[in-house]
Amino acid sequence: MTNRFLAVVLALALPFPAVAQRPAPPVPAKVDPAVAALRDAALKDDIAYDIVEGLTTEVGQRLAGTEAEARARTWAVAKLTALGFRNVRSEPYRMPVWVRGEERAEIVAPFPQKLVLTALGNSGATPAAGIIAEVAVFKTLGEFMNAPDEAVQGKIVYIGNAMAPTQDGSSYGQAGSARFAGPGIAARKGALAVVIRSIGTDTHRTPHTGVTNFPDGVKPIPAAALSVPDAKLIEAMAARGKPLTMKLVLTPRQIGERESGNVIAEVPGSDPNAGIVLIGGHLDSWDLATGAIDDASGVAITAAAAKRIMDSGKQPRRTIRVVWFGSEEVGGFGGRDYARRHGAEKHVAAAESDLGADRIWRFESSLEGSAKPIADRIESAIAPLGIVHGRGPGGDGSDIGPTVALGVAGIDFNQSALRYFETHHTADDTLDRIDPEALRQNVAAWTAMLAIVADAPEEIGPVAPKSR
Amino acid sequence: MTNRFLAVVLALALPFPAVAQRPAPPVPAKVDPAVAALRDAALKDDIAYDIVEGLTTEVGQRLAGTEAEARARTWAVAKLTALGFRNVRSEPYRMPVWVRGEERAEIVAPFPQKLVLTALGNSGATPAAGIIAEVAVFKTLGEFMNAPDEAVQGKIVYIGNAMAPTQDGSSYGQAGSARFAGPGIAARKGALAVVIRSIGTDTHRTPHTGVTNFPDGVKPIPAAALSVPDAKLIEAMAARGKPLTMKLVLTPRQIGERESGNVIAEVPGSDPNAGIVLIGGHLDSWDLATGAIDDASGVAITAAAAKRIMDSGKQPRRTIRVVWFGSEEVGGFGGRDYARRHGAEKHVAAAESDLGADRIWRFESSLEGSAKPIADRIESAIAPLGIVHGRGPGGDGSDIGPTVALGVAGIDFNQSALRYFETHHTADDTLDRIDPEALRQNVAAWTAMLAIVADAPEEIGPVAPKSR
Repeated sequence: MTNRFLAVVLALALPFPAVAQRPAPPVPAKVDPAVAALRDAALKDDIAYDIVEGLTTEVGQRLAGTEAEARARTWAVAKLTALGFRNVRSEPYRMPVWVRGEERAEIVAPFPQKLVLTALGNSGATPAAGIIAEVAVFKTLGEFMNAPDEAVQGKIVYIGNAMAPTQDGSSYGQAGSARFAGPGIAARKGALAVVIRSIGTDTHRTPHTGVTNFPDGVKPIPAAALSVPDAKLIEAMAARGKPLTMKLVLTPRQIGERESGNVIAEVPGSDPNAGIVLIGGHLDSWDLATGAIDDASGVAITAAAAKRIMDSGKQPRRTIRVVWFGSEEVGGFGGRDYARRHGAEKHVAAAESDLGADRIWRFESSLEGSAKPIADRIESAIAPLGIVHGRGPGGDGSDIGPTVALGVAGIDFNQSALRYFETHHTADDTLDRIDPEALRQNVAAWTAMLAIVADAPEEIGPVAPKSR
Repeated sequence: MTNRFLAVVLALALPFPAVAQRPAPPVPAKVDPAVAALRDAALKDDIAYDIVEGLTTEVGQRLAGTEAEARARTWAVAKLTALGFRNVRSEPYRMPVWVRGEERAEIVAPFPQKLVLTALGNSGATPAAGIIAEVAVFKTLGEFMNAPDEAVQGKIVYIGNAMAPTQDGSSYGQAGSARFAGPGIAARKGALAVVIRSIGTDTHRTPHTGVTNFPDGVKPIPAAALSVPDAKLIEAMAARGKPLTMKLVLTPRQIGERESGNVIAEVPGSDPNAGIVLIGGHLDSWDLATGAIDDASGVAITAAAAKRIMDSGKQPRRTIRVVWFGSEEVGGFGGRDYARRHGAEKHVAAAESDLGADRIWRFESSLEGSAKPIADRIESAIAPLGIVHGRGPGGDGSDIGPTVALGVAGIDFNQSALRYFETHHTADDTLDRIDPEALRQNVAAWTAMLAIVADAPEEIGPVAPKSR
């Protein structure tokens, strides 16, 4: 071995080869002191908590298309007007409405026990007296999909598909397929009904509802979610090897078309040609709780941030439009109605808050090309809030989705989802789930973003929508 | 100032005066290697978890005096027999039985919202169609007791009395007075019904049931517990200053006398004159859940420890009697029946596990006089499990209480109650609440204690019962 060969070997073996240099980190964009001041003042915000507390206390649950959602719109118009917004109005549209009925289940043999479950949105109904049938137990959606139709025909299908917590919430999409698609597949296969393990990460007796859909031409069957402990109980019973018999009573109804609507408020910009910055969350909630994290917090965070800009003493260049969308939970009707009505107006950016109220951990956007300096300035302004700049494009969210699809730049502030799916769509989604300090961190991030985007001299968009 | 005076001043000012000595710590009792070996082997115990899993899966809820509790006795006799215990039998007695009916409530004005609540044991009933009345809101039991009768007559009384977690569980007694005594006082004052904030430390929509009692001659009124978030909601609504109107439907029933019973199993001792060591927990549970921590864990821990002694290859000197008591929750009927039947037999010590399945943090006993060396040996044997020796007397617990009152030495192993009252008496008391490692620590402590007490050469008791 020559010395020269040895030197090459050593150089290759070194974790940081002596010949290479680590690249210097990029120089962060400077933070405008006015933006920093607005951000820091927002860390003492009480506006957002006041909105969440008011909406959950004075209205409570507000299922899409019901009189409760109508009361929420009345409350919202009054609140946004009282906060000083301009052009506050409700924009109605009609959509099909599903309402919950009775929901009870029990194992009648071999181990009689009552179960806790809740119907999924768009579930079919059993007769009022219920059905009694054998349970076909599948621990995963895949196991169920691979089963022959004969294994499920005339039975109540149980699908497990356990979900683990993830910070970015991606496990919801994966585990959630049992809810999104499972009932439709079960109906096609000839099952009598389907009960899934709740798409949630908790171990409480509070089942997680949520919408499901049946393919065109397939008659909806009764479909419900068991609480996680009840689902585990069924699996433990099944492990003993004897057939399980379940009684199931589920009597939800489709009640036809009703009125829903979006509520809109504005902070008018000084330059009518500079375009609109669209922000918001959804006003409707599921019917089991007061919808504090889903999504009173989203409407509250975005409105509080917009109000802080409005009250800053400096009119923004661009109009900030706050939309509290209707009937998101049951199929994104508000977001589609908004895009249909307003899609021709010049929107330059859109951002939605619909992942609860825990601390924001990541910022992503489609602010590229001439707009990239804006993203850089946002990154610098919110880094002190503990927020990283992710690589993905922005534009997530079912309410802004139809508008983003028209070529509008999306901006995402991702809250940590590690605890979100413990209470998402359950009776536990109440004011107790709101951490006021985390809520303030959200408002601070949104305030900084609005201060930067609404005033940015750069042109923004249009952008070519990307698939994530 | 003389030097002598200065010296006195300095001596007084010193935190540890030079003239004083800290006493040497007492020399701990030696640990018998056989006891240590049994203790350490129990840290790998699977018997207790198997009992909890089996009882919660194959029986589930087992409300006192119902067919479910009868199924639990059948299960218990089979299980204890299969485990190899001797003299396994069920001892029936009769007791009055209360069963749950419908339970629904809502605020109808000024903010229509459904509420989640559950009837308290012994609650009276509303008509089937329910009652509608104004709510008289009191944040504490004291505030309620000090209110004039006219302030509550014809109204639904709300009592808050918030509870904080404590390691020794003492806040249950203090906050719990709203449940134990509040409904009786409300009935005397002329209230139409009473709803309390759950006696619990969680913020979930799972209300905490539990027994209440009405004084002789006072007609029971409807009495229920709201979940903690619902209670807070009522207080938030009341803070807005408008009168609240509630609709309440509560239809439980007293169904007369039914059969309940204790299940008994033994590890016979070698010396029939050495007396009995009585241990156990209660077999019945509330009806909202499978009763994993209240008290499947208690019957499991005590039986597992007794079995480990039975299987150790050395017969104990004293008989270990395991009792799975019936109908504890609704008034301690099993404990009283046991003392009535067996009080004349020579019991030397009694210990009960009925505070869940978290780690034991403290040991207390009435092992005094000639029996004090036994307490010292227990202290040494369980110190490695992280258990301190408290100063109080032993003998806590409603099941062993009537036997302890006859002059039997009590031994207490206190689990940490910091989390116990989050799920106590709620629908959430399921297998998910059991931490297998903490359960094993319990079994290890009980096994060490039984090995010491059942074989101790010292005479034990009788003791004069003390008030705690």
